[in-house]
Amino acid sequence: MVPHLTTALNGPLLALEKSMLGHMPDIEHWFRTQWLEYSSPFYASVDLRNSGFKLAPVDTNLFPGGFNNLNPAFLPLCVQAAMTAVEKICPEARRLLVIPENHTRNIYYLRNVASLVNILRQAGLEVRIGSLSTDITAPTTIETQDGQNILLEPLQRRGNRLVLDGFDSCAVLLNNDLSGGVPDILQNLEQTVIPPLHAGWATRRKSQHFSAYNRVAEDFAQLLGIDQWLLNPYFETCGEIDFHARTGEDCLATKVDQLLAKIKLKYQQYGVEQEPFVIVKADAGTYGMGIMTVKSADDVRDLNRKQRNKMAVVKEGLQVSEVIIQEGVYTFESINAAVAEPVIYMMDHYVVGGFYRVHTSRAVDENLNAPGMHFVPLAFESPCSLPDCAGAPDALPNRFYAYGVVARLALLAAAIELQENDPENEA
Amino acid sequence: MVPHLTTALNGPLLALEKSMLGHMPDIEHWFRTQWLEYSSPFYASVDLRNSGFKLAPVDTNLFPGGFNNLNPAFLPLCVQAAMTAVEKICPEARRLLVIPENHTRNIYYLRNVASLVNILRQAGLEVRIGSLSTDITAPTTIETQDGQNILLEPLQRRGNRLVLDGFDSCAVLLNNDLSGGVPDILQNLEQTVIPPLHAGWATRRKSQHFSAYNRVAEDFAQLLGIDQWLLNPYFETCGEIDFHARTGEDCLATKVDQLLAKIKLKYQQYGVEQEPFVIVKADAGTYGMGIMTVKSADDVRDLNRKQRNKMAVVKEGLQVSEVIIQEGVYTFESINAAVAEPVIYMMDHYVVGGFYRVHTSRAVDENLNAPGMHFVPLAFESPCSLPDCAGAPDALPNRFYAYGVVARLALLAAAIELQENDPENEA
Repeated sequence: MVPHLTTALNGPLLALEKSMLGHMPDIEHWFRTQWLEYSSPFYASVDLRNSGFKLAPVDTNLFPGGFNNLNPAFLPLCVQAAMTAVEKICPEARRLLVIPENHTRNIYYLRNVASLVNILRQAGLEVRIGSLSTDITAPTTIETQDGQNILLEPLQRRGNRLVLDGFDSCAVLLNNDLSGGVPDILQNLEQTVIPPLHAGWATRRKSQHFSAYNRVAEDFAQLLGIDQWLLNPYFETCGEIDFHARTGEDCLATKVDQLLAKIKLKYQQYGVEQEPFVIVKADAGTYGMGIMTVKSADDVRDLNRKQRNKMAVVKEGLQVSEVIIQEGVYTFESINAAVAEPVIYMMDHYVVGGFYRVHTSRAVDENLNAPGMHFVPLAFESPCSLPDCAGAPDALPNRFYAYGVVARLALLAAAIELQENDPENEA
Repeated sequence: MVPHLTTALNGPLLALEKSMLGHMPDIEHWFRTQWLEYSSPFYASVDLRNSGFKLAPVDTNLFPGGFNNLNPAFLPLCVQAAMTAVEKICPEARRLLVIPENHTRNIYYLRNVASLVNILRQAGLEVRIGSLSTDITAPTTIETQDGQNILLEPLQRRGNRLVLDGFDSCAVLLNNDLSGGVPDILQNLEQTVIPPLHAGWATRRKSQHFSAYNRVAEDFAQLLGIDQWLLNPYFETCGEIDFHARTGEDCLATKVDQLLAKIKLKYQQYGVEQEPFVIVKADAGTYGMGIMTVKSADDVRDLNRKQRNKMAVVKEGLQVSEVIIQEGVYTFESINAAVAEPVIYMMDHYVVGGFYRVHTSRAVDENLNAPGMHFVPLAFESPCSLPDCAGAPDALPNRFYAYGVVARLALLAAAIELQENDPENEA
């Protein structure tokens, strides 16, 4: 179904995977106790990087946009997990209003919406799609692929409810990451909004996520008796940066230097011969805009106008003033000589599938989720839930088990992050 | 993968399936609210009969013994559902002790145990198998198929805990239906016992199950606006029967007559031309022993010695003194001219697969789960959770959706039955 993957695995990662397989009952028990304490997000996707010596999450998306890329054979898993998620978050719901991104011309994104809606319908919900886009002023049918259509309808606000013509739902599911801020029409709704508004990029910060991940990775590494760095990329933040006015560059350069030095020590400890690098990206943002690969402090001091412009603005014109500087993790997975990055999909706290983002024109130290970049999604051949404990660590299901574990660590960090940043908890 | 099935569907069943597909969001919503009130059994299988005009459960097994017959492609679904079941019933559990039936020479049953243990291990539990059988006095490895083995170990009682050598589990999972009564070694355990002891045939009565099913079917039929008889077989009971002493036969004959008359009226109402029949079986029992097909009261008055012997005793020598007389439902499904009966498997409240019991030498009005009968399991091609609402009601996934719905109705009845008969609730 899916070609076998060539992965360049050697050294610690094999040991790490072996350790995960050996500790599987402990790991699952540990996750169970964590999920007694924290509520899983409704859904999420996690981008992983597998460097051969390290397997780590680099981005956790709470509004996943690639359900169409999953192996169709996993659909029953998605449906079952969606049923669980609905039971936990909105058991009384019968109708669900999905609010997608405003990309009404991005056919790939619309296919994602169609796949997501299909999963939710199979889980037994009446689902309709309400668009925030000003382009959608009347019900609009768009063909997503060979004869398959989705219907986008204009959202209406009625009192404190979001409705469509003839459709009043018990809950609202966002597949829109609110990069442009929370529109007024979404404020103070009496319906349950999933995920909560503070999961959107108007509020969320990558650094809060990775700060929660630090604690998760520490606990988990202790459970396995391993160095948490093998699962956890270092990071630092700089606030108050203005790329246009060139203020805050010193902070950035200093932090880059510090981080590169820390990584270098670890590389020496593990005998890694590659050159350390860091990724500088907007602390609030998505879609791989405002992202730079940096190998020395000089790289951030000598930005030209074009680079500064690129960094200064992410999706929907959001200005970047806070950045996260994250340890770069080489991707050593490749498919037919093209670099590949695994993306893991979860609903509730279940891994329901994943795919590889495969780029033919990118290097092993570059971000693979960049705007305008074409990537080939390659659906995983098997779900991530079924390790073959008797098999070798690099047997395909076992590789995927490790991916599923690390993705769930990131999911748990997201759960903690959302709980800690819940405005209702603060009040 | 699996041949398409020839089913003789016509009349009301098509209408029934259409109605289920049309009401899917209502049905799933209804199930969600039911599961807020009742706790699903850990696992169950339900035997269905599909007569073309009626689709009904005829037996609900709380210790399912055919996990090996499921389509291996459904394994991830089973694992995910098992994770949910474990989270709900024993989230703190790390180790699980499985107690199988004593059939240590039935290779098919042992394959079931191996499949079940595999699912539980994939769900992240340490699992070992403790046998009640007096044959197992030391750890015994048995080959179940081509190079695959299972290890049966002798159970030990230590204070109020059941243990194996070097293995003390947080919970005990019974795959033994306790037909022979609850052995002393299982009494007053401090470990969680799943399912609870009163789910065994030492306590359970089919009539209590179908009495709970009456209420479930009535509610559900109201939701769909249909006649509940289309989902629900009539039944009656007789207590204090002694087949050897020939006491209680009058009660049986009278009830058989009454039931046949009621069925006849329904057959007239729906224009069904078959001859009504009833099944007489032990109210407490399993494995299809002590079962008779009856078409007139005379059939139960003129039992010869052999028939009386057959009815008098079920598994493990349990004496039959109470019987249930259940409306017989013709099976009109056939595969290559052999009659077929669907069996649906569930873990927690999720349908995780199913198979057909196919008999080449049985008639459409006979019980297909009889001792010594060879049946061919035919794994379902698709899980029961994914209807194609745009497709025809007799499209394969849609047939299976209806099966999954009716099986879940029986599961809900089992949940109610277990709650109502919980000795702790009475006290």
